[in-house]
Amino acid sequence: MYLTQSLHRLLQQNPHAPLTMDGDRVRTVRESVDRIARLAGAFRDLGVAPGDRVAILALNSDRYLEYLQACWWMGAAVNPVNIRWAEPEIRYSLEQSGTRVLLVDDMFAPVVDSLREVLDVVIHCGQGPTPPGMHDYETLVADADPVPDGRHGGDTLAGVFYTGGTTGFPKGVMLSHANLLVSSMGSLAAEPIAVPGGRMLHAAPLFHLAGLTTWNMQTLVGGTHVVVPSFEPVAVMRAIQQHRITTAMLPPIMIQMVVDHPDRADYDLSSFQAVLYGASPMPEALLRRAMATFPEARFVQAYGMTELAPVVTLLTADDHVDGTRLRSGGRSAPHTEIRIVDADGAELPSGTVGEITVRGGHVMSGYWNKPDETTSALRDGWMHTGDGGYLDDAGYLFIVDRIKDMIVTGGENVYSAEVENVLAQHPAVAACAVIGVPDEVYGERVHAVVTLLPGHTATENELREHCKALVAGYKAPRSVDFIDALPLSPAGKVQKRELRAPYWAGTSRAVN
Amino acid sequence: MYLTQSLHRLLQQNPHAPLTMDGDRVRTVRESVDRIARLAGAFRDLGVAPGDRVAILALNSDRYLEYLQACWWMGAAVNPVNIRWAEPEIRYSLEQSGTRVLLVDDMFAPVVDSLREVLDVVIHCGQGPTPPGMHDYETLVADADPVPDGRHGGDTLAGVFYTGGTTGFPKGVMLSHANLLVSSMGSLAAEPIAVPGGRMLHAAPLFHLAGLTTWNMQTLVGGTHVVVPSFEPVAVMRAIQQHRITTAMLPPIMIQMVVDHPDRADYDLSSFQAVLYGASPMPEALLRRAMATFPEARFVQAYGMTELAPVVTLLTADDHVDGTRLRSGGRSAPHTEIRIVDADGAELPSGTVGEITVRGGHVMSGYWNKPDETTSALRDGWMHTGDGGYLDDAGYLFIVDRIKDMIVTGGENVYSAEVENVLAQHPAVAACAVIGVPDEVYGERVHAVVTLLPGHTATENELREHCKALVAGYKAPRSVDFIDALPLSPAGKVQKRELRAPYWAGTSRAVN
Repeated sequence: MYLTQSLHRLLQQNPHAPLTMDGDRVRTVRESVDRIARLAGAFRDLGVAPGDRVAILALNSDRYLEYLQACWWMGAAVNPVNIRWAEPEIRYSLEQSGTRVLLVDDMFAPVVDSLREVLDVVIHCGQGPTPPGMHDYETLVADADPVPDGRHGGDTLAGVFYTGGTTGFPKGVMLSHANLLVSSMGSLAAEPIAVPGGRMLHAAPLFHLAGLTTWNMQTLVGGTHVVVPSFEPVAVMRAIQQHRITTAMLPPIMIQMVVDHPDRADYDLSSFQAVLYGASPMPEALLRRAMATFPEARFVQAYGMTELAPVVTLLTADDHVDGTRLRSGGRSAPHTEIRIVDADGAELPSGTVGEITVRGGHVMSGYWNKPDETTSALRDGWMHTGDGGYLDDAGYLFIVDRIKDMIVTGGENVYSAEVENVLAQHPAVAACAVIGVPDEVYGERVHAVVTLLPGHTATENELREHCKALVAGYKAPRSVDFIDALPLSPAGKVQKRELRAPYWAGTSRAVN
Repeated sequence: MYLTQSLHRLLQQNPHAPLTMDGDRVRTVRESVDRIARLAGAFRDLGVAPGDRVAILALNSDRYLEYLQACWWMGAAVNPVNIRWAEPEIRYSLEQSGTRVLLVDDMFAPVVDSLREVLDVVIHCGQGPTPPGMHDYETLVADADPVPDGRHGGDTLAGVFYTGGTTGFPKGVMLSHANLLVSSMGSLAAEPIAVPGGRMLHAAPLFHLAGLTTWNMQTLVGGTHVVVPSFEPVAVMRAIQQHRITTAMLPPIMIQMVVDHPDRADYDLSSFQAVLYGASPMPEALLRRAMATFPEARFVQAYGMTELAPVVTLLTADDHVDGTRLRSGGRSAPHTEIRIVDADGAELPSGTVGEITVRGGHVMSGYWNKPDETTSALRDGWMHTGDGGYLDDAGYLFIVDRIKDMIVTGGENVYSAEVENVLAQHPAVAACAVIGVPDEVYGERVHAVVTLLPGHTATENELREHCKALVAGYKAPRSVDFIDALPLSPAGKVQKRELRAPYWAGTSRAVN
């Protein structure tokens, strides 16, 4: 099982079909495979050996896809860098994984100046002129001899995918060829997410594992990849119309920006046959509008995480038509097994919230050079996701919170997400975060940090009474801080760690 | 990746659904899993350890399916015995694999008497009274404590599947959990062979890997298994009507016996949604009749072999509708790569006949305790199938012959199947086999062994002229033997080894 296998199949079955489309640039399967074999040769000439990590920091492009395959072709591991990171996180991920080769495009070339000391080789894969001190991508491809596919696969490391960062430095998730292929094949076995011979649009950033996974799915069944540099609703609608796109992975926020765009009616979006979305549930009203916008499309939701390569559950197209469980992440895909467990690892009955644990051929081998974190996450073959959730009687998974965001107060479990949802319904609340803080009586108490809308006021007592009217009394915040703005990560997540720290300083509990 | 994983998914998602139906006996998922855990406990109590082989010699039944899963549940390897074998082959396969435990039903219980010395434990899984000296299946299940699923998987040995026998003693193909799961998931990724929530009919014998694979496919997507003891057209039609069967794996000969049955119109066969067939191409006229008989069904052909767990290519439902390549085995499934090579292992261009070699996560780890045969079959990760074939420009595989049945005469390759097809068109020929025999001038010459229809005559010269009119002269037989009946294996295959032996006696060439 190797990630380049599909390239050979496509070469045998449809060599003259377009494999990638990037703006006006169209490359056939044969052309792409030849370029991949040459780029792999260039990597080898530059000193990359099987097992080495090769990073990329770039917007989406056809070259991004060539880079992924060229690494696998010669047995290297990819390291796709998060384009939203600041320099210290980028530097950390390169150094921690021992990555000495980086591909960079025009947008990110300036960042490289300060990273020179940790890198041996920088390759410019942008459209503009190649900056001094960098290798030119097209020159490398033109000059290198193609190398034969090493057909590295199975448990061979396919990539180190850095995740997190909101709770300290990111961790490098090690995924094998088998991990990634099992996740894609298992998902396709349940749901025809990729259409054979179809055209998949890559608008969500390719550094995210979801992008790589949909590439893999489309390539497994055969088809074309249409790439846009980044998400922009008009560019996406234009691409759909021009290329008769059949499939895309789009988060709900991107779907919303297309569906509610004022010029939507100007574009023919009827070619869409399947939309995969993930990370967050689709509000029902948005779903109805989206189904009207893409009348031929099957809507499929996936829940997953990088450590699980990434697909765990699928809310199928039939589930969307049924419509009774749209707040669920769906049911375990054919390649996976889910168990909800308590803090001692004992399995919990359906309907009871606990930690979501997952087992199967898609579970990562561990975090790069982090044995303690690996041991803590992987126990007896089960990945402990850190997500809290429950299963209903039909095996549908409902995700309620991060486990570490759960508050234990007076022996009761309180999920911060539930309280935040209720608080957010108060007319004066702009944003809020609910955390547990030390309490002499209850062990922990429910504490809210709130920012108010301009021109609105609310007291601690008012907010508590508002919550009590909607949820059990022990879930209502016992104390409230009002602040001007919540601390956010670069990805826009609330930094609860930062909110908790002053309360837990001097205690024995680690704040994460 | 473990073969019991789907049981846990079904238990979570649909515990009260029927998992198996055998005659009037219906067992839910929950009941079946409980019985499997108990049977695994009974195996353990009887001394079976993880890694041990456990055999079964029986017609199809729900207990056959429980046996398979119980072995995997406790980490044992299955050894499903070919029900068409004679005692020496059965004995050989048990002894050669060190199998000490055998399940046997009413039909095959008498065979066990002469096998006692090679067995420690015999379990009677038939419907009738349990013969003396055997354990009773239902008593074991009732009395044993259930054991937890060991979740053995990945590269763990899932079974030893004996294959061949027409060319000497059979070889035990070692397949892992991953091998079997990759083959099933990859096939489902290309083609919805199993219908989620559907009902699959098992009429073809379950000892054959195709039966086990379709079980796996249906269980991966969820659904029910309807079992009949063996193929019989009326029983099959009755089961389809009664249980609203959606899917079955049926060889063309079984499809033909249903399609052309005089009482066919008495049964409602409209529930069929997918028919998987394999081993031999479907004659076009039969296909048209079959499509009329099962109007809602997708027809899918698979080519494979035990060593490849077993699926290699799929001729999809769309290919059947297209209809231009019905003589092809289809194209490589998403989990596999095919290469046609010459005798030196060099890749051949499309359109050129050579040996079919296959690579991917479904390739066996080897033959049980046969290192030489393993080394000869597996080279650099490529399984050398022994089948001759070619690929067309669109990657469709056409199988022409067993490589060892190919004749090299005067530097030209002659495929015996092609000559046999031509010979069989002569009005006097009842059956024929074409082999290569030593020749001083040509190295090998094309030699035919023919049986004539009663009351017909034909001379060697007549038959040669008949062939020359239809194929190139060098392909026409240079010599002909007339005999009363061709030697056949128990499975009905012509024993060419036996025909060749007298000609090659005293030469250095091994006859296989």
